[in-house]
Amino acid sequence: MSLRFLGLMFFITSRVSAQQNDSIVVHHFFHEEFTAGKSYDWLHYLCSRIGARLSGSPQAAVAVEWSATIMKESGFDTVWLQPVMVPHWVRGDREISWMLEGKQKIPLRICALGNSVGTGPKGVSAQVVEVKSLAELRTLGKERLQGKIVFFNRPFEQAVLTGGEAYGGAVDQRGHGPAEAARFGAVGVVVRSMTHQVDEFPHTGATNYNDSFPKIPACAISTFDADRLSAALKKDAALRFYFRQTCQMLPDVQSYNVIGEIRGTEKPHEIILIGGHLDSWDLATGAHDDGAGCVESMEAARLFKATGIAPKRTIRVVLFMNEENGLKGALKYAAIARERNEHHVAAIETDAGGFMPRSIGASVETHAAAKVQSWQSLLAPYGIQTITNEGGGADIGPLKKQGVALFGFHPDSQRYFDYHHTAIDTFDKVNKRELQFGVVSLAGLLWLISEYGL
Amino acid sequence: MSLRFLGLMFFITSRVSAQQNDSIVVHHFFHEEFTAGKSYDWLHYLCSRIGARLSGSPQAAVAVEWSATIMKESGFDTVWLQPVMVPHWVRGDREISWMLEGKQKIPLRICALGNSVGTGPKGVSAQVVEVKSLAELRTLGKERLQGKIVFFNRPFEQAVLTGGEAYGGAVDQRGHGPAEAARFGAVGVVVRSMTHQVDEFPHTGATNYNDSFPKIPACAISTFDADRLSAALKKDAALRFYFRQTCQMLPDVQSYNVIGEIRGTEKPHEIILIGGHLDSWDLATGAHDDGAGCVESMEAARLFKATGIAPKRTIRVVLFMNEENGLKGALKYAAIARERNEHHVAAIETDAGGFMPRSIGASVETHAAAKVQSWQSLLAPYGIQTITNEGGGADIGPLKKQGVALFGFHPDSQRYFDYHHTAIDTFDKVNKRELQFGVVSLAGLLWLISEYGL
Repeated sequence: MSLRFLGLMFFITSRVSAQQNDSIVVHHFFHEEFTAGKSYDWLHYLCSRIGARLSGSPQAAVAVEWSATIMKESGFDTVWLQPVMVPHWVRGDREISWMLEGKQKIPLRICALGNSVGTGPKGVSAQVVEVKSLAELRTLGKERLQGKIVFFNRPFEQAVLTGGEAYGGAVDQRGHGPAEAARFGAVGVVVRSMTHQVDEFPHTGATNYNDSFPKIPACAISTFDADRLSAALKKDAALRFYFRQTCQMLPDVQSYNVIGEIRGTEKPHEIILIGGHLDSWDLATGAHDDGAGCVESMEAARLFKATGIAPKRTIRVVLFMNEENGLKGALKYAAIARERNEHHVAAIETDAGGFMPRSIGASVETHAAAKVQSWQSLLAPYGIQTITNEGGGADIGPLKKQGVALFGFHPDSQRYFDYHHTAIDTFDKVNKRELQFGVVSLAGLLWLISEYGL
Repeated sequence: MSLRFLGLMFFITSRVSAQQNDSIVVHHFFHEEFTAGKSYDWLHYLCSRIGARLSGSPQAAVAVEWSATIMKESGFDTVWLQPVMVPHWVRGDREISWMLEGKQKIPLRICALGNSVGTGPKGVSAQVVEVKSLAELRTLGKERLQGKIVFFNRPFEQAVLTGGEAYGGAVDQRGHGPAEAARFGAVGVVVRSMTHQVDEFPHTGATNYNDSFPKIPACAISTFDADRLSAALKKDAALRFYFRQTCQMLPDVQSYNVIGEIRGTEKPHEIILIGGHLDSWDLATGAHDDGAGCVESMEAARLFKATGIAPKRTIRVVLFMNEENGLKGALKYAAIARERNEHHVAAIETDAGGFMPRSIGASVETHAAAKVQSWQSLLAPYGIQTITNEGGGADIGPLKKQGVALFGFHPDSQRYFDYHHTAIDTFDKVNKRELQFGVVSLAGLLWLISEYGL
């Protein structure tokens, strides 16, 4: 008996049976994923054979071709590339940094922030002013900051429930610290890495310059070395800090969002988008950020094909390019969706790591909220503890203006910032089964939206 | 304002306020743990300074002294050692194993199963019979098994929701396979390691001999090598397998359960036990199994002292000795509890790793079930998704006959069997924040039982 027929049998019965049917469908996804799933092998290929894939890099181009091929081979009905021009930032030489204690150079572990300018070949050396916030920076003013290197050193808050909450409370230092420091004449910026851990790995990530002020070089420092630098400054406020980085922004290059569709049987013009971003930072191979989200998205859709379960509405996988340092792919996608007047019922983003599922955030219209809540119990066996009303994500964000219901997939967040944007965001940090539960949760959500709409 | 006073203010009000108060109390635990918690540092000391601590080992003796000191220094009201004689099994030399392909010796990664006898200094060499179950073994009988080495190779089931379910479905091969194979005249046993992973790490664990039959040497083989051995057997059914292990059981030695109490203010004779096991396998340092459970138990109790929150009933931390290969500590504890006619309201076991909390199993009387269920929402922020009716654990199990309500703490289980009983169950595999959430969940549960009884 084919599953399509099995499904049919259930569809013609009562509401209780509908729930039973949903439960059976999701269990089929589960069984397929855990006995013949491809997500983990795909992630292995993406990380270990293609590697780091920052926008504009040769590896990003390979990842585009590879993921399009994967979706074609998986039997997607349509697969295409959506052209988009993206920034092309390169790190250059390995960064060098030290602080001077007396006459001794103490080496420190740093990495350039994404989009930062270089220091020039000789590097930058200056006294350091440590601050804990942008507000504190502004109180110091030009008098205290001119010619100095600003050291943003506010740590992650510990007593918070999620990693994202801590990140949100600290990341303004990285995103806007360099631009603000430049406003007051600083010559460089060092930012404490965005993590709860005290360890040796600097965390990169994009910084945003303000065009009204000079672009000054900015780097992240490992939390362990941030603590050392801070301690050294307490002993010697006139301590000098040196860093050298040869990163630079090259001209924009042509790249692509990769898109694949499984056409809906009843309402093919109603689109359910699911996606993550294909680009990754250059320090590692982007296993959790966001290789996991890419393979989860492709695999959640593939499970429909593999099990013979047909969605009523169209499932569209979008692997966005350039989430990390420009969001050009997301903006292009939304612009074209508007231009073509496409009807997106929902957009689901998975960009929080390949960890065990915990919750789904759903920004939907009030009348649909109860329906979406009722889905939680169906997904609970696969890890979904709650469905909150906070949906969204960087790549699907631009669709909000078009009234699209936005969903965010939230796996367990406690380990995410151990790896995020570092040299250790590698394949071995992803547990196969945790990744697979993510796939099943997402496939279940796709099924429910495709079946019942919003 | 002291917390004790704060509590008092709330106690004299309505039920809604009681829930608010509970929520505030658990949040205090949370805040204390995440700003001044000791669990992670304790675990570091236990793993990295004391190390592996199999029953009867010198390290187990050090761990006893250390944990008693920790509880005294943390302000527990009473701390004592409960003597118990325990088995003293030692691994001896590093195990050696190979299979003969033609004339080539292909080395294989094995480790002796706990409690196994050795092979003698020359090792054992024989043809191999691969089976997938004890039932299959029995169908082969003496004719096919006499003089052979039996290879139990049924893998973990993949399509299961928890690691424990897969373990439960495979571990009879390790626990009873050697005894059963001996019944039919086999000369040795090799068991596929108990894990979902395909990797290079053999997983030890206890095996139980049957005194009516000879004790034959038994080892675990890494899953990677189990697959190789199986493939080689398909090519050459007469293939010979060799292994050498010099493990042996020495005379029993004196050891201890370590017990510490925080006395209840209103019903001091009503005891709420919380505990894990202090012994660990010898291949690594028992970080998840069960160093995590030990420090969680001590720390959950310490949070009461640190926050000034007094329990109405007595909280008793018990670190059991010899869970891994004899359960002598658990049996002794239950015997003495009965002898002294102690009134245990509840016993909580944490022995499933220092991962993010997921659920609590509660085997309580029917009239208390609704009350216990109502606690889930209070613990949800710290990870407790469900409270099931399946409580218990190896060390608290013997208390069941005395009518004690049994609770099992169930953190996320997907990674547990990556490390369980291997050389990689080390401190670095434990995420600090995940461990801390375990502490907070357990402290919250202690509070609720101490406050409301069952």
